[in-house]
Parts: sequence; C-alpha cells; structure tokens
Amino acid sequence: MELIDGNQIASTIIAELKAEVAAITGRKPCIALVRVGDDPASVSYVRKKEKTAAEIGIESRIILPPVDIPHADLEKVIDELNADDTVDGILVQSPMPKQIDELLIFRRISPAKDVDGLGTMNLGKVAQDDDTGFVSCTPAGIMALLARSNVDLKGKHVVVIGRSLLVGKPVALLALQKKAGANGTVTVCHSGTADLPAITRQADVLIAAIGRPNFVTRDMVKPGVVVIDVGINRVEDAAKKSGYRLTGDVDFAGVAELAGKITPVPGGVGPMTVAMLMSNTVKAHRQRSAA
Amino acid sequence: MELIDGNQIASTIIAELKAEVAAITGRKPCIALVRVGDDPASVSYVRKKEKTAAEIGIESRIILPPVDIPHADLEKVIDELNADDTVDGILVQSPMPKQIDELLIFRRISPAKDVDGLGTMNLGKVAQDDDTGFVSCTPAGIMALLARSNVDLKGKHVVVIGRSLLVGKPVALLALQKKAGANGTVTVCHSGTADLPAITRQADVLIAAIGRPNFVTRDMVKPGVVVIDVGINRVEDAAKKSGYRLTGDVDFAGVAELAGKITPVPGGVGPMTVAMLMSNTVKAHRQRSAA
Repeated sequence: MELIDGNQIASTIIAELKAEVAAITGRKPCIALVRVGDDPASVSYVRKKEKTAAEIGIESRIILPPVDIPHADLEKVIDELNADDTVDGILVQSPMPKQIDELLIFRRISPAKDVDGLGTMNLGKVAQDDDTGFVSCTPAGIMALLARSNVDLKGKHVVVIGRSLLVGKPVALLALQKKAGANGTVTVCHSGTADLPAITRQADVLIAAIGRPNFVTRDMVKPGVVVIDVGINRVEDAAKKSGYRLTGDVDFAGVAELAGKITPVPGGVGPMTVAMLMSNTVKAHRQRSAA
Repeated sequence: MELIDGNQIASTIIAELKAEVAAITGRKPCIALVRVGDDPASVSYVRKKEKTAAEIGIESRIILPPVDIPHADLEKVIDELNADDTVDGILVQSPMPKQIDELLIFRRISPAKDVDGLGTMNLGKVAQDDDTGFVSCTPAGIMALLARSNVDLKGKHVVVIGRSLLVGKPVALLALQKKAGANGTVTVCHSGTADLPAITRQADVLIAAIGRPNFVTRDMVKPGVVVIDVGINRVEDAAKKSGYRLTGDVDFAGVAELAGKITPVPGGVGPMTVAMLMSNTVKAHRQRSAA
C-alpha cells in the first residue's frame, strides 16, 4: 500500500506556482476573497487562502460584507470586482447566510475570474472538455493527486460515491474527459443506489464523497484499488483536546490493507483545494494578460 | 417485450404543445432557424422543424447565411437574434462549415433563447439540476420517452454507451438528477471501456449512443432491460430503393427478445428531438413573457 500524500503534492504545486509568479514581470496575480459574516470555519478557511496566496506571491484582497447584506448589494460587490481590471480571481466563501442564493452569486462572478469554478459556465466547460475554464478546487485537486501519483484512468473503472455539485458530478465529468490521464469508465453512485457494495467492488479507482464517516469498508473494495477519500467528518473523540477528530468517508485501517494507493484524512484531498485555487488564480492572470 | 413508440409519444407532446400555444393570447412563440449553407441533411432537418412549428402554431423565421460566411458575421447574426424581442428561440443547424467553431456559436446564443440546449450555460444548468435551463433535444427526448413509458430510474442502474456532448454526458447528468423519475445510478462507458459487456449486462436501463450499427448484441444485456437506442446509422441495403436502410446501435432482433421495453430505429428517439425543440421554444416564450 502506498500513501498518497496530499500535503506533499500540494507543497510541490505551491512551490511551482511560486516560481511561476516570481517570473511574472509587472502586475502580480490578485485574488479577491469575499467572506460574508463571521462563521468560524469560514474565517479559518479564508485566512488559510490568504496565507497561501502570500506565500506564492499572489496579492489578496479581503472583502468582508456584513452578514445581513441584501442579495442585490452582494451582487453589486461582485459586479465591482468583475469590472476591476486589477482583480484576476474572485472567491465568495461558502456557506453564505440564508438570504443569499449561492448558485446565483457563483453564477454572477465573471466566468473569466471564477477561480473557484463553481459558476454554471465553468461547470459547463468541464462537460465540454474546454480547458479555458476553471475546474472547481476539490475535483481539480483529486485529478492532480491521481496524476501526480501516476494513476492513469485510461481503461479503468472509476466509481464515484456521491453526486454533489462540488465533488461528485464534476469529478465524474473530469474522469470521463478525452484527455491524457482521464478516459475512465465512470459510475456515479449515491444514497439511492441499490447494492452499492456490488458496484464499489468493481472500482479500480474509488472516489468517496458521500459525507458519512467510515462509510466505505474493507468488504466494499477489491484488492489493489486506488482510493481517494474526500470526506472530512468530525467524530467525537474524548482523547482529543478538541473533543473530536477528523475522519474520512473511508474506514482507513480496514481499506488500506487491501488498497494499492490511498489518501489519508486529514492530509489527502484537503490540502489540495487551496493549492488548486491558487493554480486557478495564476491561470486567470495568465489568460487575462494574454487576452 | 413492449415497444416504446417514439412517433406516438412525440405526437402526443406536439398535440399538448398545440393546445398550450392556442391558449396564448398575444404574440405566439417564435423560433429562428439558422441554416448555414445547403447540406442536404440540414435542409431536410430544418424543413421538418419548420413544418412541426407551423403545426403547433409556433412562428418560425428561416435565416440562410451563405456557406462561406465569416465567423464574425455569423456572430452578428446571432447577436441580432439575441437582441430581437420577438424571437424566443434560436437554433443554428449543425453541422456548420469548417470556418465556424460550433462550440463558440452555440455559446454565443443567449442562454434564455438557447432552445437547442447546446450552449455551455445550459449544459451547466443540467449539471446543477436547474430547471430554468434548456436541456438539449436528444437527451430531453430520451428522458421523455422513459417518463411516458412509466420507467422510473430511481434505484435503477442506467448504463450509457457513449460520452458525447450531444447525448452521452447530458443524459447521464439527467439520469443522476435528484428529481422524480431520475435518481438513477449511472455508468458512462465508451470506446475505451474495458470489458464493456460485463458492464452493460448490469444495466436495468441501457442507453446506446455510440454510433456503430448493431453494436449492442443479445449477449450484452440482461433479461428485462429497458433499451433506448439513440443510433441512426446508414447500412447498405440493395433491397431498398435508396440503397441503404437506417439501423440503430442495437441489434434489435436479438436484443428485443430479452428486453422489457425497447425503442425501434427509426421511430424511437428520432421523432422526439423535434418535439423537444418545440417544447423548449414554448418554454422560452413562457419564461420570457414572465420575465
């Protein structure tokens, strides 16, 4: 069994981006990070993104609208960032307060600046194998983990558990693309799937993104499977100071014994998402500079 | 074995649309049909669309740019139709001449008028389960055939052969949607799939869209399977006056003996596409009138 080390792969990507940004003469890439309200997890995520941007040499601009901002005013914030030539990427941190329709906000971001890849246009471009778009960060991170672990999906059966817009559907579309590294046969399963284990046991590559701790057990996989565990679940743990520990969707101990390669949680997909956001921001800067 | 009669289901939908359009007071729906050049198949397709529109009471406007129209000029044609308030739907007939990038032309059509559903935004909306969009006509026709034949995909394994942008990918996304009639577990196979028969034999619903005559044979399906044959292939046939006959991707005679339900070719998916185009046009008119 080989561990797929997300921390290490993310560090490599960040170092590559740092070198690329250092070579840019003139204005450096800039990402606008919009955080509505003070949700503690969001505060921490945005801080992490800001820190990584700084490490790479990407400018970040933090915008903090009040938690009760009306929908139309948040749209105005987006419109101003869309119009600002010195901004390459725009991220609006999810979750947003309940008066905000996230789908509409993501869609309002100019597709050329939608570095979080959650807008409708960029999702459509994933389906169209159109590389001018931005792939959302978790699925992009999964594909990068596979590519940098020398896992070629060609001729392989990729089984995705979970059909979310954030992970399941885009990663399925990516695995299907006619592109080096992809070209997989892809099955998407979910909570309504009949006899799930019979399907997951066929997987050469299993991507678990269902949000249920230790859901994938040893009896659900075949020997040699490559496992990407997207889950980040909090499980009570009295032995921890915080009172909980993080666990994936995969019962790591049991599955790792059979797996060819597997990502840990934490330290697998998690660290990749910020790296991919930064990669998209540098790409947006590159494309906007060329345009 | 029950035959899924596409001619009959399409006729029913057309009759429903006719009643809906008859009830519209004021301006009737209008579709612009753009045909670049004189490709004989395109001439025949556009004529069929015009005829069906007239039957329903939808106005159609035929635009015939010359085959050598520069890309920018075709964009201008689209822009003018986008700006024309009396036009609800725009269809640009494929295939277009080689100086034209079809993807860019489809993307240029206003999403609110993209009744052919081939623009990037509407494809993204399919992935987002967003019903304000337009589903492209062949996948929409497949879903309508299933729904009107009382085939509920919930808990079923849907296997799609073919990953095209026109059929395979959108129909896979539709079958996956969290919606009444959908909620299937979905596998997408293609020319690079290893041991295809082992996968197709698992299908409760098999959608063949690979473009190879009689590709799906009796040994590739399980008893009771519902088969949707999207293929329309010309096969030489000296007995026919035309010298050819149309055949699907499925070896009908062999597979029909095992199938629970099956579409014929011709007379299955084919007649549905024009009906769905008209349905989208009436929907575009409804949405634009409400806006």
